[in-house]
Amino acid sequence: MTSLLFTHATVVTMDPAQPLLQDAYVSVDGPKITFVGTARPFGDYDREIDCTGKVLMPGFVNAHTHVPMVAMRGYGDGNDLQDWLNHYIFPVEARWDDRAAACCADLGLAEMIASGVTCIADMYMRTGVIAQRVAAAGISANLSVGGVLFSDTFDPGTDHDCIALRELTEQWHGYDDGRILADASIHAEYTSRPAMWDWTAAYARDHGLGMHVHISETRSEHEACIARHGRTPIQVLDDHGVWDGRAIAAHCVWTTPEDWAVMAAKGVSAVHNPMSNLKLGSGIAPIPAMRKAGVNVCLGTDGVSSNNCTDLFGDMKLAAILHNGANCDPLALLPGDALSMATVNGAKALGRHTGVVANGYAADLILVDFSRLNLTPCHSVISNLVYAAHGCDVVMNMARGKVIYENGEFLTLDLDRIRREVEGYALPKLFG
Amino acid sequence: MTSLLFTHATVVTMDPAQPLLQDAYVSVDGPKITFVGTARPFGDYDREIDCTGKVLMPGFVNAHTHVPMVAMRGYGDGNDLQDWLNHYIFPVEARWDDRAAACCADLGLAEMIASGVTCIADMYMRTGVIAQRVAAAGISANLSVGGVLFSDTFDPGTDHDCIALRELTEQWHGYDDGRILADASIHAEYTSRPAMWDWTAAYARDHGLGMHVHISETRSEHEACIARHGRTPIQVLDDHGVWDGRAIAAHCVWTTPEDWAVMAAKGVSAVHNPMSNLKLGSGIAPIPAMRKAGVNVCLGTDGVSSNNCTDLFGDMKLAAILHNGANCDPLALLPGDALSMATVNGAKALGRHTGVVANGYAADLILVDFSRLNLTPCHSVISNLVYAAHGCDVVMNMARGKVIYENGEFLTLDLDRIRREVEGYALPKLFG
Repeated sequence: MTSLLFTHATVVTMDPAQPLLQDAYVSVDGPKITFVGTARPFGDYDREIDCTGKVLMPGFVNAHTHVPMVAMRGYGDGNDLQDWLNHYIFPVEARWDDRAAACCADLGLAEMIASGVTCIADMYMRTGVIAQRVAAAGISANLSVGGVLFSDTFDPGTDHDCIALRELTEQWHGYDDGRILADASIHAEYTSRPAMWDWTAAYARDHGLGMHVHISETRSEHEACIARHGRTPIQVLDDHGVWDGRAIAAHCVWTTPEDWAVMAAKGVSAVHNPMSNLKLGSGIAPIPAMRKAGVNVCLGTDGVSSNNCTDLFGDMKLAAILHNGANCDPLALLPGDALSMATVNGAKALGRHTGVVANGYAADLILVDFSRLNLTPCHSVISNLVYAAHGCDVVMNMARGKVIYENGEFLTLDLDRIRREVEGYALPKLFG
Repeated sequence: MTSLLFTHATVVTMDPAQPLLQDAYVSVDGPKITFVGTARPFGDYDREIDCTGKVLMPGFVNAHTHVPMVAMRGYGDGNDLQDWLNHYIFPVEARWDDRAAACCADLGLAEMIASGVTCIADMYMRTGVIAQRVAAAGISANLSVGGVLFSDTFDPGTDHDCIALRELTEQWHGYDDGRILADASIHAEYTSRPAMWDWTAAYARDHGLGMHVHISETRSEHEACIARHGRTPIQVLDDHGVWDGRAIAAHCVWTTPEDWAVMAAKGVSAVHNPMSNLKLGSGIAPIPAMRKAGVNVCLGTDGVSSNNCTDLFGDMKLAAILHNGANCDPLALLPGDALSMATVNGAKALGRHTGVVANGYAADLILVDFSRLNLTPCHSVISNLVYAAHGCDVVMNMARGKVIYENGEFLTLDLDRIRREVEGYALPKLFG
C-alpha cells in the first residue's frame, strides 16, 4: 500500500465543511484519502508532491460517454442527424471487433485521463473489452451495454444485449473493490420494447445494479413516445420499474416538470451533455429548472463523435454559461453549481464515494497548474477552474490513490502502442 | 528581410481556389506570403519549418477585445450585471495608470498569441500604451478609445475621448505599414450623445478610419434606445452617419431584420461574442439569420472579465454549436462557417489583407499540432480544428512574417518580466 502526501496545495474540496483550503495538506493511503487540512499530518510518506502554484481537486466524473467512439471523431460532420447516423455512424459500428474496440477504448481513456477524468459512466458495445481496458488504465467506471431491442418478440435467454449484461455482471461487477460496476441499461425508449424494460428493471433489482438510459434527447423522440404511449419516456419507463434503483438519465433535453417530479422522487440523476446537445441540434436542456425541482444533475461529454472531444472542462464551462444566456439571467447557474455537476453530483449519480476531497473518500484527485497564462491572475479559484481552465492545464491525475498521469506522461497506458494499434489496425478495419 | 519556407504542411487556406492542401509548401518573404502550393518553390530560404503532423492556417482575428481587462479575470463573478459593473469593474477601471496598463496589456497579448491570435480589434482606455505594447508584441491591431459621453454638453476640443482619439490617430494610425490602425469609436448608444456621434463619424470620414461600437448587447439597452429615439441603436447611429465607412458592431444580440438590412447595405460587420453573451446573460445573437441577411459576421472573445479567457478556439467552437442547439438544427452553422468567422471575416471587418493563406496576403500564420490526443484520429481537418482543438494545441504563431511564439516560448515578450510587473505592481495598484 503506497502512501502519498500533497503539500502546499490550494484545495477545492467540494466539502461544504471546508470548501477551499490554502497551503493545505492532503494525505492518501492506498486507494483512499486519509487527511485533509492545513496542518501537516504526522507520519512519513512514500512520496510527497509539492503543489505550490497548483490546485488540487476531485477528478471529474464524466457521467455519460461512449468511449470507443473516439475513433469516429468528426466522421460525417456536416450532415443532418439521420444521414449522419445511417450513412456514417451505424455502418462503422457494424465493423467493430474486439481488437479495434480495445485500442480505441485505450485512446479514449487516455484523452479523458489527460484532461482530468477519474470516473466514467460508459454505454457501448463490447463492454467486456472496455472493462479490461478500464481495469488496466486505473480509473473507475460504471459500464453498461447499449441495450437495443427493435423486435416485438423478446427472449432474455437469447437476446444479445441480455447475454452481454449477464456476462458483464458476472465477470466485472464489483471488480477491484467496486472500481468497475455493471449498470443495467436501456438504450432509449424508442429503441426498445416494454418486455425488455421489465426484464432489465428486474435484473437490476435482483443484482443491485444501477440503470443507464438515454432520455428525451430530441424533441421528435420525446413526442413520438407521447404519441405511442400517452406518456413521456421518463413516465412510461417509470411504469415499468426502470427507476426503482439508482439511475442515470442522459440528456433529458425535452423532459417536463412532471418528469422532474418523478426523477426527484425516485432519485434519478440527469446527465447534462451540453456540447453534444448543441452540436447535434437537440436543444437546450432546462437545467436550472430541473435543479430547482430537486433533480441531481451531473455532467457528461457524450461520445466524441458528437462533441468532438472529451475535455469535461469544456462541458463544465458551457453548462455554467449556456443557461445564463438562454434565460437572460447571469445568475441562472453559478460556477460552483457547474463544478458540483462535474464532480460530487456525478459521484452520487454513479453511486460512488468520490468527487469530494475529504477523509475516507476515494483518492480520485487531479492537479491543475494555476501558473498557466489563462489562469493568471487568479481572483477566484472556482471562477478560474470553471470559466478559464482547459483539460491541458491538468498536470497530474490520481485514480484510487495511484498516479496514472503526470506532466504529460501516462503511467498505466502505452501511448505509442495505442497509436500504432489505432492507426495500423482499428482505422483500416473500421473505415476501410 | 527574412525568408522562410513551411514544408510538408497540411494547409487550411480559407482560399476558395484551393481550400485544403496536403503535404504543401508555403513561403514567406518579409511580412508577406509569397507562395502556396504542393510543389516546392525554387530558391533558398533563411529557415525551413517541417510541418509534418501539423496544420498551417491563418492566425485568428479576435475582432472585439479589451486587452488590459485580463487583470480582472474572474473578479466579481457571481454578482448580477449592475453590481458586477458598479462594485467591481468600474472601481478598478478608475485605478489604471500607464504602468499597470502596459504590463496587463502584455499579459493579455501573451495569452492571445499563445492561443493563435495574430490580429485584434481592441477598445479600451490608455490606447497609446496599448499601441506601444502591440508594436512590441508584433501582432496587428485596430485600436479604439472606448468613447463615452454622459454629458449633454460636448466640446471636442476638451472631451477626453476626442483628445485620446486624435493622439492615437496622429501617433499610431498606419504604424509599421498599417500593422496598427486607429479606429474611431463610440462605446455604445446608451453611453454617449448625438453630438459625439456626429463628431466621431465626421472624424472617421476625414481621417479614413474605421468605426467600432457596442451594439444591442442587452435587451434592456436595445429597448431603452427605442423608447428614447423611436429607433434601434443600429438605426439611430445610421441617421448620424456612423456606418458610412468600414465599421465593427460588437455583440448585436438584440438586432432586428431591419438592422441587418442596414448593416448589409452599409457593410457593417457584426462581431459575435458568444462566450461573453452567454456568461453575462445577454442572450443568444441570431447569427444564422444575420448571415443569411448578408451581414459579415466575425468573432471576438470580448474582455477576459466576461469570458474568462481569450482562447478564440473556444468561441469558435461555441459559435459552431450554439446556433444548432438554439435552432434545433444541426446544420444551422457549419464548422467551415465558424472558421471563416474567426479568420477571413474578421480580416474583412478590420480592413486587413490577412486571414487567408494565399500569395500576397500578410504572413499571419499559426501551426496547430495535430498529433495531440484530442485531434486523433483526424477524419476532417476542419471538424478537428473547430470542434476539438484548443488554444494550447498552437505550437507556432507568425505575425507579419516574424515568428513571435514557438513551442511555448515567446520571442517578442519577456514573460517573466510581465509576470513580475503584473504581480508586483499592477495587481496591488488595481485591487489594493
